[in-house]
Amino acid sequence: MFNNKMTQLLKIDYPIIQAPMAGGITTSNLVVEVSNAGGLGMIGAGYMTPNQIREQIKEIIQLTKRPFGINLFVPNEFAYTDSDIKSADQLLQPFRDQLQLHEDQNIDIPTYDQLVKTFNEQIKVIIEERVPVCSFTFGIPSEEVIEELKINGIILIATATTVEEAIEVEKSGMDLVVVQGSEAGGHRGNFIRESHECLIGLMSLIPQVVDHVSIPVIAAGGIMDGRGLMASLCLGAMGVQMGTAFLTCVESGAQQIYKEAIINAKEDQMVLTRAFSGKWARGIKNKFIADMEKHEDLLPDFPIQNALTQPIRKASSSQQNTDYLSLWSGQSPRLAKNQSVKMLFNTILTEAKIITIKI
Amino acid sequence: MFNNKMTQLLKIDYPIIQAPMAGGITTSNLVVEVSNAGGLGMIGAGYMTPNQIREQIKEIIQLTKRPFGINLFVPNEFAYTDSDIKSADQLLQPFRDQLQLHEDQNIDIPTYDQLVKTFNEQIKVIIEERVPVCSFTFGIPSEEVIEELKINGIILIATATTVEEAIEVEKSGMDLVVVQGSEAGGHRGNFIRESHECLIGLMSLIPQVVDHVSIPVIAAGGIMDGRGLMASLCLGAMGVQMGTAFLTCVESGAQQIYKEAIINAKEDQMVLTRAFSGKWARGIKNKFIADMEKHEDLLPDFPIQNALTQPIRKASSSQQNTDYLSLWSGQSPRLAKNQSVKMLFNTILTEAKIITIKI
Repeated sequence: MFNNKMTQLLKIDYPIIQAPMAGGITTSNLVVEVSNAGGLGMIGAGYMTPNQIREQIKEIIQLTKRPFGINLFVPNEFAYTDSDIKSADQLLQPFRDQLQLHEDQNIDIPTYDQLVKTFNEQIKVIIEERVPVCSFTFGIPSEEVIEELKINGIILIATATTVEEAIEVEKSGMDLVVVQGSEAGGHRGNFIRESHECLIGLMSLIPQVVDHVSIPVIAAGGIMDGRGLMASLCLGAMGVQMGTAFLTCVESGAQQIYKEAIINAKEDQMVLTRAFSGKWARGIKNKFIADMEKHEDLLPDFPIQNALTQPIRKASSSQQNTDYLSLWSGQSPRLAKNQSVKMLFNTILTEAKIITIKI
Repeated sequence: MFNNKMTQLLKIDYPIIQAPMAGGITTSNLVVEVSNAGGLGMIGAGYMTPNQIREQIKEIIQLTKRPFGINLFVPNEFAYTDSDIKSADQLLQPFRDQLQLHEDQNIDIPTYDQLVKTFNEQIKVIIEERVPVCSFTFGIPSEEVIEELKINGIILIATATTVEEAIEVEKSGMDLVVVQGSEAGGHRGNFIRESHECLIGLMSLIPQVVDHVSIPVIAAGGIMDGRGLMASLCLGAMGVQMGTAFLTCVESGAQQIYKEAIINAKEDQMVLTRAFSGKWARGIKNKFIADMEKHEDLLPDFPIQNALTQPIRKASSSQQNTDYLSLWSGQSPRLAKNQSVKMLFNTILTEAKIITIKI
């Protein structure tokens, strides 16, 4: 029942991709367990250096013969002045005080050119290490990059949040498109329109995209179990990409306090914020988000705000304090469990079978 | 395949409810055609007088022997000062000028007590005329009203936008609950939390609600075809309530310019606004919404703003101008068609069969 163009292209048994969550969540253990279970494990490499990427790929190849993938952030241009940074930095002083963080942290704000250079180096490693699948967020890479990856037989995926973006993804030569519904946790993947104009629920987004592209559509956002998988297939998707469901798994690298925060959360606590990174993202509303709410529109763009808040997130993490951590999560926290990847797959596949019989 | 607790309670063949859209859309012809096709046609009676309600019910009973339903707005308390109204009214002057509307319109702002009185009269008519099904938006009516309706054998439905609200609906004694996803067009039905905290996509909302209530769950928001119906069933709903899909039907009372606006719209043009009524609602972004955007948070509550903007909407309508009309629509306008109700049902049921075979 799961033999379709998506599973064929990705050479996997079940149409389930583990979302490439950035920031230390996608441990080699998580990626390998997902791929060994018949899905596609993915490295969330957005914030990783080329060397870190190479090391993790080598580790994964040691542990599984199954296909796996990697995700990169497409660099977006951004501009700022020193006074932007100064005023954004001042907004953060009360939080540093609370966390007893000393001033004069060495904050490293990259330039756009540096981001592009790193991106090209990341691509080089992916090609050299022969990663089977590469996906992109925050846009579509250049024609040259796409061509280079395709010549090397790497299957390509990009993220879209509207029909228009999905059409652009197909035009660019991508093999598959992930459609990110408004339910999704973490960063919004919009790259044509403003983020708030691209908050389309999957019930609306999947069928409208499916009617406008011919590459396989993968649904992402709030999908946690066999019900979400089967619903996505009914709507015309060929499979799903699940983030939060894997984030709370035993094998994920998310901190225990983060996993517990999700498992104890309710669907109406998930809000969109720019406070942590400068890009809109969905997570559990905590003290940092609440305190920064009134400044949302004045904050500098990604990755500037991300760089500025890094010491705060780091200190909050090491102090086991969820008040100042980015607790990204989709809108279905009540369905999250702290279980093994194997157990999650078993449940999904059992539920899928029951639904098939029932319908 | 559609024999479940929802179809049994409502005594219908297919688990499809035509959403009770207020404001002249639910003509007797629309309601009757839906009920005759095997679904549940509904009168959107929120803005109707008890007499208008009685007349339409009598008309429908003449035309069909099938069950049908009616929807009422549960009155919410509201407060205002004369200066609130004056400043809100001043914001509307530029629009009246554009539409060449003379001032000194007789604007009738009801008191809360008047709303309650009308609501009780509406309930009385519904009981006297033996309407089989009554649904509620904007909250849950009093215990006395619920008891009175139940004694008279009327099946009751209320709307929820979160798990917490759905639990309250079940506790109140309602027979079924409509869960309104963020995809939905028209007014938000939230009644416990703030509207923006209750924008949960159906992919997340349905399974989380289903896990917490035992009454049948009906999915609403962005559902337009057999794909949406089958997806909702997979997620655990027993059926669907569809608004926009019926609004553009030949039998609906929506103006032709309104139907065309939806059919030509894209999913990312649908925005939430308080500008028309004082309550958050989703519709196509037009000139009125765009111009009022900066004042959103200062507008008086429903039904005050609704009363203030009524002459503007009326004039816009009679001038065949969509700039100042409330063009409520869900997030799936690309799936809307100007077809007969019969054709819509045929398509849904055919698609549902195809999906069943495929899965």
